[in-house]
Amino acid sequence: MLLSFGYSGRVYPVNPQESEIQGFKAYARVSDIPEPVDFATITVPAPAVPEVVEECLARGVKAAQILTAGFREVGEEGQKLEDRIAATAARGIRIIGPNCFGVYSPGGGLTILPGQDFPRESGPVAFISQSGGLAVRVPRRASGWGIRFSKAISYGNACDVNECDLLEYLYQDPETKIITGYIEGVRDGSRFFKLLQKVTRVKPVILWKGGLTQGGARAVHSHTGSLGGAEAVWEALFQQTGAIRANSLEELLDTTLAFLHLAPYRGRRVSVIGGGGAITVAAADACERTGLSVPQFSSQLQKKLATILPPVGASFRNPVDVASPFPPPLVLKAVLESVGADDSVDTIIIDELEFSGASAGMKNIAERFGTTLNEAAQVLIDIKRTLSKPLVMVLAVEATGADAIEFEGVRRSVGDYFLKEGIPVFLTLERAAKALSNFLSYHEHRESVSQRV
Amino acid sequence: MLLSFGYSGRVYPVNPQESEIQGFKAYARVSDIPEPVDFATITVPAPAVPEVVEECLARGVKAAQILTAGFREVGEEGQKLEDRIAATAARGIRIIGPNCFGVYSPGGGLTILPGQDFPRESGPVAFISQSGGLAVRVPRRASGWGIRFSKAISYGNACDVNECDLLEYLYQDPETKIITGYIEGVRDGSRFFKLLQKVTRVKPVILWKGGLTQGGARAVHSHTGSLGGAEAVWEALFQQTGAIRANSLEELLDTTLAFLHLAPYRGRRVSVIGGGGAITVAAADACERTGLSVPQFSSQLQKKLATILPPVGASFRNPVDVASPFPPPLVLKAVLESVGADDSVDTIIIDELEFSGASAGMKNIAERFGTTLNEAAQVLIDIKRTLSKPLVMVLAVEATGADAIEFEGVRRSVGDYFLKEGIPVFLTLERAAKALSNFLSYHEHRESVSQRV
Repeated sequence: MLLSFGYSGRVYPVNPQESEIQGFKAYARVSDIPEPVDFATITVPAPAVPEVVEECLARGVKAAQILTAGFREVGEEGQKLEDRIAATAARGIRIIGPNCFGVYSPGGGLTILPGQDFPRESGPVAFISQSGGLAVRVPRRASGWGIRFSKAISYGNACDVNECDLLEYLYQDPETKIITGYIEGVRDGSRFFKLLQKVTRVKPVILWKGGLTQGGARAVHSHTGSLGGAEAVWEALFQQTGAIRANSLEELLDTTLAFLHLAPYRGRRVSVIGGGGAITVAAADACERTGLSVPQFSSQLQKKLATILPPVGASFRNPVDVASPFPPPLVLKAVLESVGADDSVDTIIIDELEFSGASAGMKNIAERFGTTLNEAAQVLIDIKRTLSKPLVMVLAVEATGADAIEFEGVRRSVGDYFLKEGIPVFLTLERAAKALSNFLSYHEHRESVSQRV
Repeated sequence: MLLSFGYSGRVYPVNPQESEIQGFKAYARVSDIPEPVDFATITVPAPAVPEVVEECLARGVKAAQILTAGFREVGEEGQKLEDRIAATAARGIRIIGPNCFGVYSPGGGLTILPGQDFPRESGPVAFISQSGGLAVRVPRRASGWGIRFSKAISYGNACDVNECDLLEYLYQDPETKIITGYIEGVRDGSRFFKLLQKVTRVKPVILWKGGLTQGGARAVHSHTGSLGGAEAVWEALFQQTGAIRANSLEELLDTTLAFLHLAPYRGRRVSVIGGGGAITVAAADACERTGLSVPQFSSQLQKKLATILPPVGASFRNPVDVASPFPPPLVLKAVLESVGADDSVDTIIIDELEFSGASAGMKNIAERFGTTLNEAAQVLIDIKRTLSKPLVMVLAVEATGADAIEFEGVRRSVGDYFLKEGIPVFLTLERAAKALSNFLSYHEHRESVSQRV
């Protein structure tokens, strides 16, 4: 893994049965390594781990990640082994794990489990995860949307380094601008609470808390031996600290995308611009259900839009229905300029307009409109550069079948184009609205706190 | 459209300026057509529509669809035109529309707007839609998941044939087993209510009601001139009639998929079988949040599972964590047989196990496990045939990037494989749980009604 990921530091395999592993000289014990060691990855069976950690400490290793499972999550015997590791850690070596996937650090070239095909580029997003699986899944899914990571850390049972230590570290890490996490249980609730209050004044913290239902709590206990906690307590924590609550992997990533691309601002008034009646109805419903508002335009703005849009099939009042998913580029430009210049809205959501025939996934449309980006896409990019309001985009997966996979490829390329221009792209209006609402909640909280101080 | 869709009946173009259109003799007026006409599609500008409808009536045409917009949805003038059409309809011709996309009827070979590339196969699902765009979008997306339609009818302003007439028709239509719809407003609330009570005793009705928020209601008014209605009234209607409420396009289609593949049953106790700690935690949370329960297994069943699964990294209590997304086929088989034979659960959800290396979207996994279906997939199909409990599957889109599109193609093929075997496949656990909960609500209501009668 280290080799294929391109780790450039020295590697010392330790194995009592081999003298050479993949071209590296192997050592029977940690104490045999002739040079100072910074970091160890421990994968021996659970009963042997405490002794190896002792050896690492004796050899002056500063930190280790223990990928092995079979500790407190399996019962009393495991708990005893874990207690021994924690006791060793307290004497001068920092431990990540056990029962984890460890660290993915693109800058340092470090990854063991199984991020071999993860990006080598760093980015502003950190992810801490009590789950190993999610420490794989989150960066993998996110990377497809252009989200890059400073560090992703799977910390498992957290016998030494825990969620608070990691938050503290990421708070100070200049590479990290957005902190995300999957948490099952917290050891020190009071420290966690105060820390979140401190961190969220500077960086957004987006947390997915698992195990808040009865069945979920039971699964949490089997997974990392944590206590799930009460829904009401956690909800209060989110409210009072300004940390953003995400209830699913999708919400975690969507919200991250909003923070990544939108400059800080406040204001829940949204204009939705779509190309169809039901789409704009659904958009308004979805926005208002997440706490955004879709205010009716002034009669002045309505009159202006009436001079731009066709008299039949369009709607001017907000949401704006431009009467077709394929509006003429100059019409789209004029609509965006008019709405963009108006004081009554804070954000513009472009809802499922077509920027390439093929993104609709329809053969006949692709034949008529082509599979490359159309002029409307360029209009949007140009407008975005001059507009004082954020643009948010919804590009739904219309082509759902295996036989329509090429259209989905085009849709993704269209999405990448907008993402590269700093426009966040979401898969459904509901998801866009939720991400935007989460983003705004953070900035509302942050401003209210700064006014109080 | 008719030609490319393969309509086999006679076609009479009517156009005063042409004598021949695409090889068909054209007629200047409807009255010039020498043979009896069953059905007309009217696309002339709005002011000319009432006269054309009159001509159709005079010529003995039984029904017409009016695709033209510019009627009551644009104001008083439009309302007057629409009133004239309705008056003509009352004298003996049935009208669908105006301001609609009309009928998609694969059995009859009929489609005008723009279902040219829709399946010619019929199926058990009907869709009625006040929106033209959704009458395109719903069958298009659904067809990618193997859902086939008896009829999809976009009925727009409903100046004559309305949602009640269509419900009544589909109630009696032997081809239709599941009724779905997108509704903006209802003309006759009392008839609609009673009709739904009647229809849901025999066929499920899944409705997406648009315009229940302030902004949504405004958009509805611009779109089809309907009144949005109050949230509480509609919620009561759903509760009392047993119609299923869907709040988005995704929920409408997911719920349809559940009805399509699951035999009627009751019971909200679910077992989730997944391959990872956080995945099963999230699964339990999502299930219980939608009103399903994830009961703890009896100690007997737990002991049995403990003999099948590895002692470390797995969980036996429900949710079941089989310790890896790639469980050995015999392990998966034994787990499914044990859980399947137990009385404590009604449904088994298979959550994001891997049935092909490539469905994970990871190059290194695809290299190790291949891109074709693995043996675990066959285990599932075999088990499904003998199991007395329904199986539901979650196959998430892991490969989100444009560069990973080939993996998404494999994932879809894996999904198709299970769909063909009658196992509903969902994109996220949250969506699976909601669809299942909707499905169960219908059967709970239906049984409670039949007991009362």
